[in-house]
Amino acid sequence: MASQRPDYHSILQTIYAEVLPRLGEGQVASYIPELAKVPIEQFGMAIYTLDGQLFSIGDATTRFSAQSVTKLFALALAYTREGHAVWQRLGKEPSGSAFNSLVQLEYERGVPRNPFINAGALVITDILASRFVDSEIALVQFMRQLTDAKTVDFDFKVADSELSTAHRNFAIAHLIKDFGNMHNPVSRVVRSYCRQCSITVTCEELARAGSFLANHGVIPWSGEQLLDASSAKRINAVMLTCGTYDAAGEFAYRVGLPAKSGVGGGIIAIIPGEAAVAVWSPGLDASHNSALGTYALARLTDLTEQSIF
Amino acid sequence: MASQRPDYHSILQTIYAEVLPRLGEGQVASYIPELAKVPIEQFGMAIYTLDGQLFSIGDATTRFSAQSVTKLFALALAYTREGHAVWQRLGKEPSGSAFNSLVQLEYERGVPRNPFINAGALVITDILASRFVDSEIALVQFMRQLTDAKTVDFDFKVADSELSTAHRNFAIAHLIKDFGNMHNPVSRVVRSYCRQCSITVTCEELARAGSFLANHGVIPWSGEQLLDASSAKRINAVMLTCGTYDAAGEFAYRVGLPAKSGVGGGIIAIIPGEAAVAVWSPGLDASHNSALGTYALARLTDLTEQSIF
Amino acid sequence: MASQRPDYHSILQTIYAEVLPRLGEGQVASYIPELAKVPIEQFGMAIYTLDGQLFSIGDATTRFSAQSVTKLFALALAYTREGHAVWQRLGKEPSGSAFNSLVQLEYERGVPRNPFINAGALVITDILASRFVDSEIALVQFMRQLTDAKTVDFDFKVADSELSTAHRNFAIAHLIKDFGNMHNPVSRVVRSYCRQCSITVTCEELARAGSFLANHGVIPWSGEQLLDASSAKRINAVMLTCGTYDAAGEFAYRVGLPAKSGVGGGIIAIIPGEAAVAVWSPGLDASHNSALGTYALARLTDLTEQSIF
Amino acid sequence: MASQRPDYHSILQTIYAEVLPRLGEGQVASYIPELAKVPIEQFGMAIYTLDGQLFSIGDATTRFSAQSVTKLFALALAYTREGHAVWQRLGKEPSGSAFNSLVQLEYERGVPRNPFINAGALVITDILASRFVDSEIALVQFMRQLTDAKTVDFDFKVADSELSTAHRNFAIAHLIKDFGNMHNPVSRVVRSYCRQCSITVTCEELARAGSFLANHGVIPWSGEQLLDASSAKRINAVMLTCGTYDAAGEFAYRVGLPAKSGVGGGIIAIIPGEAAVAVWSPGLDASHNSALGTYALARLTDLTEQSIF
Repeated sequence: MASQRPDYHSILQTIYAEVLPRLGEGQVASYIPELAKVPIEQFGMAIYTLDGQLFSIGDATTRFSAQSVTKLFALALAYTREGHAVWQRLGKEPSGSAFNSLVQLEYERGVPRNPFINAGALVITDILASRFVDSEIALVQFMRQLTDAKTVDFDFKVADSELSTAHRNFAIAHLIKDFGNMHNPVSRVVRSYCRQCSITVTCEELARAGSFLANHGVIPWSGEQLLDASSAKRINAVMLTCGTYDAAGEFAYRVGLPAKSGVGGGIIAIIPGEAAVAVWSPGLDASHNSALGTYALARLTDLTEQSIF
Repeated sequence: MASQRPDYHSILQTIYAEVLPRLGEGQVASYIPELAKVPIEQFGMAIYTLDGQLFSIGDATTRFSAQSVTKLFALALAYTREGHAVWQRLGKEPSGSAFNSLVQLEYERGVPRNPFINAGALVITDILASRFVDSEIALVQFMRQLTDAKTVDFDFKVADSELSTAHRNFAIAHLIKDFGNMHNPVSRVVRSYCRQCSITVTCEELARAGSFLANHGVIPWSGEQLLDASSAKRINAVMLTCGTYDAAGEFAYRVGLPAKSGVGGGIIAIIPGEAAVAVWSPGLDASHNSALGTYALARLTDLTEQSIF
Repeated sequence: MASQRPDYHSILQTIYAEVLPRLGEGQVASYIPELAKVPIEQFGMAIYTLDGQLFSIGDATTRFSAQSVTKLFALALAYTREGHAVWQRLGKEPSGSAFNSLVQLEYERGVPRNPFINAGALVITDILASRFVDSEIALVQFMRQLTDAKTVDFDFKVADSELSTAHRNFAIAHLIKDFGNMHNPVSRVVRSYCRQCSITVTCEELARAGSFLANHGVIPWSGEQLLDASSAKRINAVMLTCGTYDAAGEFAYRVGLPAKSGVGGGIIAIIPGEAAVAVWSPGLDASHNSALGTYALARLTDLTEQSIF
Repeated sequence: MASQRPDYHSILQTIYAEVLPRLGEGQVASYIPELAKVPIEQFGMAIYTLDGQLFSIGDATTRFSAQSVTKLFALALAYTREGHAVWQRLGKEPSGSAFNSLVQLEYERGVPRNPFINAGALVITDILASRFVDSEIALVQFMRQLTDAKTVDFDFKVADSELSTAHRNFAIAHLIKDFGNMHNPVSRVVRSYCRQCSITVTCEELARAGSFLANHGVIPWSGEQLLDASSAKRINAVMLTCGTYDAAGEFAYRVGLPAKSGVGGGIIAIIPGEAAVAVWSPGLDASHNSALGTYALARLTDLTEQSIF
């Protein structure tokens, strides 16, 4: 890792110049009607360093639907309450399958492979639902604390849109329930999960929100220890092996940073000991990761040599 | 990452003291008759730092069967010849399945998930077989260069033992051939693969052999650039996501280093920019990784805080 | 096929004598609390010949939960309305998997393998739900017509018991819905399906109910043509290949008659051109078919040589 | 079943008239180079009744490659030696998968689903290889006895062509061997299997060869009892549920007779108590069954009402 701080400002300029002519690449997620309406030609990126500097470019203050990126914060919140005990309910191995598949879940008797596929996220939601009167509000409050901003909130139009087409998630949740690994009613868990997915953030907020994971579990600006150092590292490890759908190997290969992506086009990546990086562009590649977002992160680690490998 | 060099000497002492009373944990691999004869109560560990120091403890100079650890060096050798083109023949995603399963291979039409499951290693062997008159001898020579030792060699008794029970590998190779992804005769590739697996090393040799991957692709003592920096990092990334059988997520979580394990009980792990670590103990856990070897590596990153996360 | 009518009366006596000392074999279905309460030591058998004779023995007038046996009549009812068009919504191949598996359903994109696994029965229920204001009442009325008895009815206690534990069926129905192969609301279809399963019959009623399938689609006592001859034969064919869970091959081998079984312990079997046979005994074998029921049918075809093969 | 003998002569004429304008439908099997050369515009059909009459039409005396049709006779031959004990080595359930898939075989630990998929046929060949010095010659002799003709023989050109491209079958055999369910060397079993597949017959011979299965296990012209009546019926049952690749349900539905097909375009079907029917036309449908052959059999049971259902 470079001992000298890279010049993030000019690096972001370089990346932005490369990305601009490519705006429009990929496909906007179409399975949720509300998401399908998002204009594709947008790109934002923000870097929040552990000494409190914020670098950003493009549409870094535009709100977007965090979608599966929230799975990272839901896991972290569950971790603050349950610690390693969460792993009694789900695994931490890459699935090798599509994020919404039921095949492995049936073979492995209702124990999801990891917290970042839908099945695992539903179990995490169930854990939160047992811990909090209103689990999705607890998550929004947690994310507000992490972003130091009151603007993080649900987009109920998206949440309703997701809930009305959530047949696959209902199927997954019922199958988990059938195996006895869901304690709350399926309807409550799926509704909460859809609301969680609808949470909106900006790149600048998201970079800030991820910074405690680069900082041994400590919020940089407040010094509050949310997770012990070991737990923070381990969440990063799970992100690296499972955080980018069925392309975790490819992503580790190209980018070399722990990251969590969402079908809204956002990605949060962690540079341990240094910074958190958020990127957003709605066009997705075939693996459901933001096409230009992945490109931008790959360029970042090329230019800074900050890949963890 | 700690800016100060950890005191590897005393850390190895600490680990060894913890490991000694646990010698005998796990199960020696039984599926190859010759391997089943190895006494379980052995443990060795060696650290080779990029400035050329070697720290070791226990049975670090005992020869053992490298088995799947050789898949790492076979991949690196193929990379020196083919570069990224190897990925036209196989993937780099975790499989989510057993290392010797044919299920995914059939569904994915003969394209192995990654170079560290048997199917992928057989394709790499096929690539080498097309490049070298005698691919397994080329590999031994490559490993001799990497270890700076003439002692790396086949154990033909083990190789023959493996070949005579290699029905599963023959099945995998024929299935790959059926899909047109194997260019050399199955019998040649499987024989070469069995010989490759039989190669013996010591921990001290193995630590040395891995050091170029911690050093941007450059052999530390000779300065020879075997791979460009980017390729070396990327092999580390593939190791992290795919190197420890179906427990890559758990291993990343516990140890936090790129690593490749073998059923002989050896593991090579990379501390990027710092050192390579080899550990060996023949007792395997349920995931076919060395039980005490994994423990020792987890303790190492606990004590040195050198997890890449 | 024997040209002479077998002496069904004495054959039933013979079978009953063989069965009596074995009462209690198998396991009563336990996954539905209400079914688990049924005393296991019961056995009834009835044969209804096409010339209107009824032979019966044992508990042939005891009501039991028809469960999956109703899938046969639901298919027949759908057939009277849709004819061969039902096959646009589902297949007619054996599944090779458990009756409540989601694996194949996901791989085959929501098109169930056949009408006798749960997924297929839910699609048939959906077809009926689109045809009738109250599909389960339509089915009861159809079965009353087929049995010539007003006693066929729901057991709402069983229906409620099933609905409250129907997570697996909800999962299946939501997955089908996700693939666009379910037109009515999941909640309506699953509720209707649970009620359908709860329908109670006696062996004597059931033998009568199946007789039109032995009679080219014509109700023997009324002469009413419910299905054309070809359709009746084809339903028999689907029964033979798919009617007895994942043991259709074994059942065809041992019994040699088209049949449909249920976890309540009932089985209806068809002797084409001759008779319908109903048997009931609550103890199930490992394949979820009535253990003594299967035995009794195998003995019947041994003694009468009426296997269709 | 019609009490009166149908007029097979005029029925064959009718079918032939319908088939003639459709000659060329389907695809000739292309995976074996030698088979791909067979001209598609051929059709033959023969009916051999238990009273010794032979009806035939079209290319009923042209030799063709029996391919998987031989699996029926290999099973029958194994049965004459081992009886029900064959079922200790393989199952009798439909597979629900492609005939040459390894997926189920791996999940079910080397025990093939039934004798008519490749895996099961290889186990049957292994059984014969343990019983006979030269198992494929034993099979040819058995088929000569069944056809009452010396003309049944190998086509070594086809056998060699198959052997040289038999990677999938080698993969299957090695996987079975890995699970300990193959006693002879893989190379011997696969070679024998390829020779078995290459056996050529005519429709007239094939109809004769199947007649003992319609006749309670007795060769009609000689009165020799090859199998007891029960075993003959049971082989018919296995044919019905497993004999026509992954289309057994559809075939039972359309044709309603036990049958075994081959990729050479031949099908043998059994009308229990009445006759055996052989049909051949090289164009295959998507399920690898002869397209016109299936059509012709469906028409036969339509016209004669001899479906077993």
